[in-house]
Amino acid sequence: MSEQAPAAPSFGYEKDPAAIYRQSFAIVRAEADLDRLPESLHPVAIRLIHACGMTDITQDLVWSETIRDEAHAALSSGAPVLCDVEMVAHGIIRRHLPAQNEVICTLNDPAVPGLAAELGTTRSAAAVELWRHHLGGSVVAIGNAPTALFHLLEMIAAGAPKPAAILGFPVGFVGAAESKEALAANGLGLPYLALTGRRGGSALAAAAVNGLAAGLPEEAGND
Amino acid sequence: MSEQAPAAPSFGYEKDPAAIYRQSFAIVRAEADLDRLPESLHPVAIRLIHACGMTDITQDLVWSETIRDEAHAALSSGAPVLCDVEMVAHGIIRRHLPAQNEVICTLNDPAVPGLAAELGTTRSAAAVELWRHHLGGSVVAIGNAPTALFHLLEMIAAGAPKPAAILGFPVGFVGAAESKEALAANGLGLPYLALTGRRGGSALAAAAVNGLAAGLPEEAGND
Repeated sequence: MSEQAPAAPSFGYEKDPAAIYRQSFAIVRAEADLDRLPESLHPVAIRLIHACGMTDITQDLVWSETIRDEAHAALSSGAPVLCDVEMVAHGIIRRHLPAQNEVICTLNDPAVPGLAAELGTTRSAAAVELWRHHLGGSVVAIGNAPTALFHLLEMIAAGAPKPAAILGFPVGFVGAAESKEALAANGLGLPYLALTGRRGGSALAAAAVNGLAAGLPEEAGND
Repeated sequence: MSEQAPAAPSFGYEKDPAAIYRQSFAIVRAEADLDRLPESLHPVAIRLIHACGMTDITQDLVWSETIRDEAHAALSSGAPVLCDVEMVAHGIIRRHLPAQNEVICTLNDPAVPGLAAELGTTRSAAAVELWRHHLGGSVVAIGNAPTALFHLLEMIAAGAPKPAAILGFPVGFVGAAESKEALAANGLGLPYLALTGRRGGSALAAAAVNGLAAGLPEEAGND
């Protein structure tokens, strides 16, 4: 192979952000089985699929009936968004939040390592303890740690204030599927949206917030 | 259903971070087909699978032979890590970087919107223009935007300095698969690791950096 740089290639890819969004959402609508979801959840489902590149996640989504309205009303009235990791916080499109809502991640709070040692749990779970006075009426987005979701459910069952919505997207092999099953089976009347099984992640948790906050404004060229 | 909170449930989940990592990595090793990858890439592949919950991604991984050594040497000698989005930057475990490497994301640089308009492209692609004086010998991690990866390849083909490694994990339906194909087909001698197809994302791009930087220190209880 020649060491000389070849002529600059022209890949002919789409460069217009609005067109990219339109084409992406059109492909998702054409390929995904959205019919198994209530219409109110179609925008958030499209955004979730868009975030992970997998149309088949619809089959693993579980939700409570009121989730869209509860989450949207909470955000509109200024509820904070509580995130388990910074990646989730940084995936939330701030201009889509209807009330300049605070986005809170306590994982890197200096109190967390000590608290984790004291409670005998992970830093992710300990960080959830620091959500306590934000919890009532909040929107919780968990994109990484099963232990954060388990700990949250335990706190609420023990009397902590209830969030308005819990978006459950822990990912991985140890506890992720189980934590989302526990969320979906919660006997606490907690509105939720979750992706069952091992799949999940920060991008999905953030996409859930974005979709519940604003639907798909990019589709109308309003991004 | 009673409105009273039930007794706090006890989920009996694993709370020891070291045990969670050990069990996770053991499940991945047991289930994933790592044999199709060179041994030098097993740690990074395990970390990638761990980040997305899908053992079958090994079948879609593509790489150049020298990628592990090139990336590791670059990081050890202090190369910056260039990320297309803040989510990637926030997924990089700083204590795993061997030389307190700078992690750079230019997407929110105030110059980007004007540059995107001028170049007639996305903000993600325009942000890559601002990498130019960091590019030589760098480690590039792209976890979101196909246009960023396409633009990078065009810049390098046109004579911009070459990174030591390009980690290609754009996700989605418009351009993602094509941009990663273009990376793998690059005639520029660029070392790369990529996940072909629609799947990808910030967590994977960050996991690739973490795995190439440090392997799996958590497995030895050294996290």
